[in-house]
Amino acid sequence: MACIVAKFGGTSVADIDRIERAADKIAREVALGNKVAVVVSAMSGVTNQLVQYCNDVTPVHDAREYDAVVSSGEQVTAGLMAIALQKRGIDARSWMGWQVPIKCSEVYGKARIEDIDGSHMLERFEEREVAVLAGFQGVTERGRIATLGRGGSDTTAVALAAALNAERCDIYTDVDGVYTTDPRITKAAKKIDRISYEEMLELASLGAKVLQVRSVEMAYKRDIPIQVLSSFEDQIGSELPGTLVTREEDIMEQEVVNGVAFTKDEAKVTLLNVPDIPGIAAKVFDPLADANVNVDMIVQNISSDGKVTDITFTVPENELDKTLEALNAQEELKEAEIRADKDITKISVVGIGMRSHAGVAQTMFRTLADKGINIQVISTSEIKISVIVAKEYLELAVRSLHTAYGLDG
Amino acid sequence: MACIVAKFGGTSVADIDRIERAADKIAREVALGNKVAVVVSAMSGVTNQLVQYCNDVTPVHDAREYDAVVSSGEQVTAGLMAIALQKRGIDARSWMGWQVPIKCSEVYGKARIEDIDGSHMLERFEEREVAVLAGFQGVTERGRIATLGRGGSDTTAVALAAALNAERCDIYTDVDGVYTTDPRITKAAKKIDRISYEEMLELASLGAKVLQVRSVEMAYKRDIPIQVLSSFEDQIGSELPGTLVTREEDIMEQEVVNGVAFTKDEAKVTLLNVPDIPGIAAKVFDPLADANVNVDMIVQNISSDGKVTDITFTVPENELDKTLEALNAQEELKEAEIRADKDITKISVVGIGMRSHAGVAQTMFRTLADKGINIQVISTSEIKISVIVAKEYLELAVRSLHTAYGLDG
Repeated sequence: MACIVAKFGGTSVADIDRIERAADKIAREVALGNKVAVVVSAMSGVTNQLVQYCNDVTPVHDAREYDAVVSSGEQVTAGLMAIALQKRGIDARSWMGWQVPIKCSEVYGKARIEDIDGSHMLERFEEREVAVLAGFQGVTERGRIATLGRGGSDTTAVALAAALNAERCDIYTDVDGVYTTDPRITKAAKKIDRISYEEMLELASLGAKVLQVRSVEMAYKRDIPIQVLSSFEDQIGSELPGTLVTREEDIMEQEVVNGVAFTKDEAKVTLLNVPDIPGIAAKVFDPLADANVNVDMIVQNISSDGKVTDITFTVPENELDKTLEALNAQEELKEAEIRADKDITKISVVGIGMRSHAGVAQTMFRTLADKGINIQVISTSEIKISVIVAKEYLELAVRSLHTAYGLDG
Repeated sequence: MACIVAKFGGTSVADIDRIERAADKIAREVALGNKVAVVVSAMSGVTNQLVQYCNDVTPVHDAREYDAVVSSGEQVTAGLMAIALQKRGIDARSWMGWQVPIKCSEVYGKARIEDIDGSHMLERFEEREVAVLAGFQGVTERGRIATLGRGGSDTTAVALAAALNAERCDIYTDVDGVYTTDPRITKAAKKIDRISYEEMLELASLGAKVLQVRSVEMAYKRDIPIQVLSSFEDQIGSELPGTLVTREEDIMEQEVVNGVAFTKDEAKVTLLNVPDIPGIAAKVFDPLADANVNVDMIVQNISSDGKVTDITFTVPENELDKTLEALNAQEELKEAEIRADKDITKISVVGIGMRSHAGVAQTMFRTLADKGINIQVISTSEIKISVIVAKEYLELAVRSLHTAYGLDG
């Protein structure tokens, strides 16, 4: 007997038929003697419709009201899932974020879970009542609904798993696991059976959209294994058919590189002739933080003349205008030349094995050079090497690297 | 300056455009210096869709989960309305039933408001923040969402008006007031400017679907004038363009009969040869109450032989099967003959003036007789006379009575 949290994303609860199929899976887990809590997203399309409504009234709207509106989608699915489980003879009830309560920070639209007071829920969970929790939402200290930002249901699921001391968090989705790279780019991509939290974090933050980054961070911190698996296949989490994200120690065989990730929707910003003085980075990035821009890769090389330097970083493409506006308003940067480029892609290879293997970066640079792909920017971390290249090379670069690192299935 | 509650029904918030128009009306009230609280229904069609979802999973579902699902519709509109008001420079926020809180009984799906703890809301209301309350819902002692039954948003509005000590509750809907009868039956029907609570109660319970009966009861008890007015006309509540439901004393000129009402969806049940013994009525109606059947008109005449008697009553047509099932299961009624008839209509004339005028019933019976309409059952109250006739005479009977009582416009 295990205690499991199972999360179903939007496509997995897209209509009544899919909700029924998801309920069947839960029923099979319960029949195995497992205690199960379910986290649901809104039926696919619903959240987009609700967001559209808000934007139709006015594009600039109160985030608290936006949250009240969009959180309703998960509420509907939670109730329907509870009904579907009861229909199968399973004791079940729905929980809204405020009922648990799932306490959130006051950053409406992008709130963070601060605490789950699971006492009331745990009591009934221990009595084997299946809890069906509306994902993506919580309640603030002021008693208002706050949403966690898109994809927040994954975070809800992991946080709930931690609160319930669950053994595993199954994320049912429309893909059957995490792949070595996007199968739409190369058919040679293959499913990874086990991957470490660290690697998954890098892959998630690098654009492998299977799991929300924050959910992986939380799972890592609380040591909750996450399984990514398909809700469309005839299988359940306890059969371990998907990709298990777990501790490095629990993975027998480590590949040097476990995946090739890429982003399509980033823009590169370069500041030339920035005064090379202490605190200049803060001058650049403070206003971006104030404007809520998610700055990703940052590269600054040494100053050749000791007076001015260049800084390059990437931001989400749709935040580029906001970024340039914020930078242009900075007095200290008025001498700097600001260049922006949307026609780029960031390609990364990720692998824990990198730590103990030499020549991993060299393979990457050689492979790209052989294909005539110019590397614009390089950035590395302990388990990742990222490069920025022109967007037109995306597919070629990914395929070549996938082959070069021996990942082809 | 007045304190007003304004409620907008489903068709009045059917889409973003209509929500905007409703917000315009509120803005005009605020500009007049009024303090306003708004109660909203779900966008029209939404509740039906949500109910359909529940039924699609299984027709017999947990009412608590049903409530969690269907209450989401009002939540969406409340958030959108708050955004629309803010866009007009008005300080506004949405309130869900559980946030106020609006405390409800545990009868999920048909809950009653027991108490509104308006302290938190009142504080902000006094600061002229427009409160936008999701109608139709509250929270039970166990912290679960309960809905008030279809049309419950009217009740929410009146209850809120009482809690805020409002001067008037404006019910914006798709008709411009209460009519002397259904204008689809006779073009001679005319709008009533003022009508007493008692008359409105009779009209509402008799099938004039403009206001939910419970909301009128509550308004009567708490003495909150209700105005029914159109959200589609270019007018606002403070101009008093609709029908004001108020105290008898506040109505200058009383008509003898103020309206002709009718029901189309009732069925008549007659029990013949019922033993004429004490407690027999309880034997008949207890099981119906247990089966949650809404019994309406009940008529029992004296027993001619002192041994057996006949009882006639009406029930909603869609509860007829349930009714017959419950009656057939009663041991004490096994000698009785049970007859059911769906082809009936109940027609009623209502007027406070009846109390002080003779011959009102006579006019009704004479009018129907002149048209050759047979009266099957008669029942009277202080301000109402109801008859049951064959359904085929509905339009003829209503038109004739409308003329006979001098109501034609």
